[in-house]
Amino acid sequence: MKRLKTAIDAVVEEIAKTDARGTPSQAVPALAGADTGQFGIAVHTCEGETVSGAAADTPFTIQSISKVFSLTLALEAHGDDVWTRVGREPSGDPFNSIVDLERHEGIPRNPFINAGALVVIDMLLGKNAGKASHDSVRAFLEARIGADAIGIDDDVANEEQSSGFVNRALANLAKSFDNLDNEVETVMKAYVEQCALTLSCEGLARAGAYLMSDRADQHSDSVAEARRARRINALMLTCGQYDGSGEFAYRVGLPAKSGVGGGILAIVPNEAAIAVWSPGLDDNGNSLLGTRALELLAEKMDWSVFGSIERR
Amino acid sequence: MKRLKTAIDAVVEEIAKTDARGTPSQAVPALAGADTGQFGIAVHTCEGETVSGAAADTPFTIQSISKVFSLTLALEAHGDDVWTRVGREPSGDPFNSIVDLERHEGIPRNPFINAGALVVIDMLLGKNAGKASHDSVRAFLEARIGADAIGIDDDVANEEQSSGFVNRALANLAKSFDNLDNEVETVMKAYVEQCALTLSCEGLARAGAYLMSDRADQHSDSVAEARRARRINALMLTCGQYDGSGEFAYRVGLPAKSGVGGGILAIVPNEAAIAVWSPGLDDNGNSLLGTRALELLAEKMDWSVFGSIERR
Amino acid sequence: MKRLKTAIDAVVEEIAKTDARGTPSQAVPALAGADTGQFGIAVHTCEGETVSGAAADTPFTIQSISKVFSLTLALEAHGDDVWTRVGREPSGDPFNSIVDLERHEGIPRNPFINAGALVVIDMLLGKNAGKASHDSVRAFLEARIGADAIGIDDDVANEEQSSGFVNRALANLAKSFDNLDNEVETVMKAYVEQCALTLSCEGLARAGAYLMSDRADQHSDSVAEARRARRINALMLTCGQYDGSGEFAYRVGLPAKSGVGGGILAIVPNEAAIAVWSPGLDDNGNSLLGTRALELLAEKMDWSVFGSIERR
Amino acid sequence: MKRLKTAIDAVVEEIAKTDARGTPSQAVPALAGADTGQFGIAVHTCEGETVSGAAADTPFTIQSISKVFSLTLALEAHGDDVWTRVGREPSGDPFNSIVDLERHEGIPRNPFINAGALVVIDMLLGKNAGKASHDSVRAFLEARIGADAIGIDDDVANEEQSSGFVNRALANLAKSFDNLDNEVETVMKAYVEQCALTLSCEGLARAGAYLMSDRADQHSDSVAEARRARRINALMLTCGQYDGSGEFAYRVGLPAKSGVGGGILAIVPNEAAIAVWSPGLDDNGNSLLGTRALELLAEKMDWSVFGSIERR
Repeated sequence: MKRLKTAIDAVVEEIAKTDARGTPSQAVPALAGADTGQFGIAVHTCEGETVSGAAADTPFTIQSISKVFSLTLALEAHGDDVWTRVGREPSGDPFNSIVDLERHEGIPRNPFINAGALVVIDMLLGKNAGKASHDSVRAFLEARIGADAIGIDDDVANEEQSSGFVNRALANLAKSFDNLDNEVETVMKAYVEQCALTLSCEGLARAGAYLMSDRADQHSDSVAEARRARRINALMLTCGQYDGSGEFAYRVGLPAKSGVGGGILAIVPNEAAIAVWSPGLDDNGNSLLGTRALELLAEKMDWSVFGSIERR
Repeated sequence: MKRLKTAIDAVVEEIAKTDARGTPSQAVPALAGADTGQFGIAVHTCEGETVSGAAADTPFTIQSISKVFSLTLALEAHGDDVWTRVGREPSGDPFNSIVDLERHEGIPRNPFINAGALVVIDMLLGKNAGKASHDSVRAFLEARIGADAIGIDDDVANEEQSSGFVNRALANLAKSFDNLDNEVETVMKAYVEQCALTLSCEGLARAGAYLMSDRADQHSDSVAEARRARRINALMLTCGQYDGSGEFAYRVGLPAKSGVGGGILAIVPNEAAIAVWSPGLDDNGNSLLGTRALELLAEKMDWSVFGSIERR
Repeated sequence: MKRLKTAIDAVVEEIAKTDARGTPSQAVPALAGADTGQFGIAVHTCEGETVSGAAADTPFTIQSISKVFSLTLALEAHGDDVWTRVGREPSGDPFNSIVDLERHEGIPRNPFINAGALVVIDMLLGKNAGKASHDSVRAFLEARIGADAIGIDDDVANEEQSSGFVNRALANLAKSFDNLDNEVETVMKAYVEQCALTLSCEGLARAGAYLMSDRADQHSDSVAEARRARRINALMLTCGQYDGSGEFAYRVGLPAKSGVGGGILAIVPNEAAIAVWSPGLDDNGNSLLGTRALELLAEKMDWSVFGSIERR
Repeated sequence: MKRLKTAIDAVVEEIAKTDARGTPSQAVPALAGADTGQFGIAVHTCEGETVSGAAADTPFTIQSISKVFSLTLALEAHGDDVWTRVGREPSGDPFNSIVDLERHEGIPRNPFINAGALVVIDMLLGKNAGKASHDSVRAFLEARIGADAIGIDDDVANEEQSSGFVNRALANLAKSFDNLDNEVETVMKAYVEQCALTLSCEGLARAGAYLMSDRADQHSDSVAEARRARRINALMLTCGQYDGSGEFAYRVGLPAKSGVGGGILAIVPNEAAIAVWSPGLDDNGNSLLGTRALELLAEKMDWSVFGSIERR
């Protein structure tokens, strides 16, 4: 624990000295003016402790990180049938590309690009919603970390409702291929609501703890859940950072999912769940300092799914 | 060790009962008539032992698995400069697609699609070859497992020399973008030679042992090499099975590289290197039974980079 | 005139004997069951006469042929500014492809693919509608051939309103690139209404007469209008039959625009406007028998914009 | 004739005053430094006279204009069988794009993009060469305008031989799909040789006269040839200016084929063949001033396949 605290402090210090801070998302007006000086980090360990640094309790919109939670619910409700409606391959295209969706006849390449997330959410709505433990990402998160730890950014929610034209294009195209059961606007509403949820780094790290697939974790007491978590980690590693997933795997070596609000949730299987946040993004739409912080922390802790360096 | 032997025996038994066996590569005439009943498996552990099953000592052409070894040499010689000439992202297209190469102006998406492998090999030839420890994949492999364990399939070598039109198209296109220093035919020759090398499963598992990034391994005594291995694992996981990499990560959960000859090299970081072989391929060009065998073995051994299920 | 009548009679006879009749559009349910035995033809000459054959007075929905008329109005209202919002190049993709729209950042390739038609209609609506002579395709057509010659197919109109998901996808994507001033649903409504207009071959030939760019034509008394007609003909020739435009130009040699209802309007510059109709479509979505009839008529009349064969 | 001479003189004068002159092809080193002040124009009429202006007797490499002549020979030798190996549709992509070739499984979109021209030339070589009247473009041209009017630019020929990597990529890809009978280098050699032929505007206008499909023309005394000419015109109109074909049809309204050397051959069916030349190119690789000159001349002569404006 002491080693972790020391490592986090060193990361915070190094990040504070970094000049390049990226650019906030210009696609979401409520985020466009965000202060790129902001940074937070929190680690929830398999021992159940949370160690944090900098602005770890400042809430931010989780945006696409919510796709991990809706996928979890869809897998719980529909099992591997999920994969009849959405693929499991990296897309090689930006997060909002419509090309792949047309080329693959309405089957999004994976559940983390926008088209895939819309189809996943569609599986959780209406009469085909199945039997997930919770009926929304918000309810799922409340069960894990308590309602008090969760907010909603109304500015983001309202704005996206009216301006999400690309997402409406994707949803309509999926529907034209019969891959959307509910009305476009119904799906859009649920999508925007889960994207606009706000958590702090501390909340997010705790919320993502079930993905450690550690059966000691109180929320993960079944083999089925651990197995599911492992598979979600696989998807996060191959597809979680959009068109920067390969580079992220190379540099950081951990499964992770980013959001356009500047947050990233990363998992050290069997060991820890990490949340970082800084609103400035890189060219692929992932938090620039968040990625850098994860790289530094993973280095200092010798964390990588691709092998330990330290002699054991 | 006993658990591993029991697991391998069970896998061999289950594979023997499997009816669907895939189709040998029709692109390589010398492979087209291969007996899809053939299967071999070998595991080299971090303790330095090799446990094997079925036709583990039958040699087969390693084909694209050789791309892992040439990449290792290029990273040794050129370090991260490799990434100025080839990307690190999954392609979302088949292994021999020329689309991406044009779209990204001569920079192949990753070192494991054919275009990327040609550029990597180009980095090992001629006056810009750098300072790799060996001047060819064959020499690299001989240093690891001895010349006796390595052969070459002349039929494959000669055939591909004359018929590799797609690869010549890729090489010429890369050259048109100034991303090939040597003559197209020089690069083609080296490419074909390393693809036509033959190893058995036992030889391949030993040859790939350095990718465990385990410093106890006799061939991997430096931190630098362990660090490099870790990064190669990341590339194998995100890009190693062509357009089936995402599904492979989901089902098997290990970094791996397949070859059109039916072999697959998979790595359990810090624990083991696995080689499987069966010539029947699936739609993405990966060994059907080889993939299935890896899935079974990983399940039985609780091996996955995305987390252990067994309570520790 | 006698030669024309003889030619039309011969075409009608030959078409009646043709076995291959294509398939009605399955995308529009109200058309899906259409009798592919139906066929009509009418030619309006520069002398002002109309010669027709078979079911020349049966009304059918003009569908995409309406795009010619809305483009005419947009050019009248906005002149060459139209081309700041839509291109003039053949697309090399099907009529409803969304790929090009994304690749060209919201600028449709031409005004005859669906995305282009939606943008053109947008230019005729709202406060930026400009100063076209008529405020809708219907009004434009009424001024030319009288209200009695024009109907609307309510089944088609209502159906498409609710099921045009691809078009909504295109409109939303255009809007995401700021290339749609009006609400998506407002544009969709106008689009569907003009597509559902019904004309007979006789009506359509007279309605298209202004495209002969013949100043003797009563509707075409200005040089400006003749010049505009000439340019619309150019677009019809290069882009009028979707991804079959090249082959149509090769076989028929006349500017033309097809509709999914089975109609085609073709122009013999300075000589005649031709309308044909038969509901069975070919693979590119153009009327199979309509195209064949035009090929036969053009052959018999020695009509081609690419040169006369007969010694003059 | 007097009207034509007056029109040409006016065009020459206007072009001389034009400031924007485009950029010579940088892809062909021997052309890269060309003086963009150069301009020539010649018109060969159906009466058999040639009227010219400016540098109408300066030779230049015809480059891709040669594709019209090789296509003529292939159609003569193989008839419509040509279209089993190459398409007739505009490509919507640049002239040297390899994407379409892969997407359409080795069938180039049309005979005027590079891939298509290579396949057409392949049809004229070797044991499947068929029965064309001449065995090379050079022989075909010599029969029309005499050997004295034709040269070859050795710099261009030698240079392209060694540097045509994109074309080699295209040829290899076509061969991988079994759409090239001869060796890649054999086809490349013939391709480069016909591209490096030099003609003056006067020579080119006379050489292209057969495309007027005028049976009075001495070289075009058969209906079959006139019919073929008409179809080549159709291809020139839809595909002759690469990805600028639609705009060219809109602005100029004549079938035409451009070459990267700055020449353009345009046809006024039944009336005239026009050659213009100026080495500065626009963004699509077509002569900037050449296109402008054709637009001016067509305007002054009321020439357009899409209709005459002048009251007849």
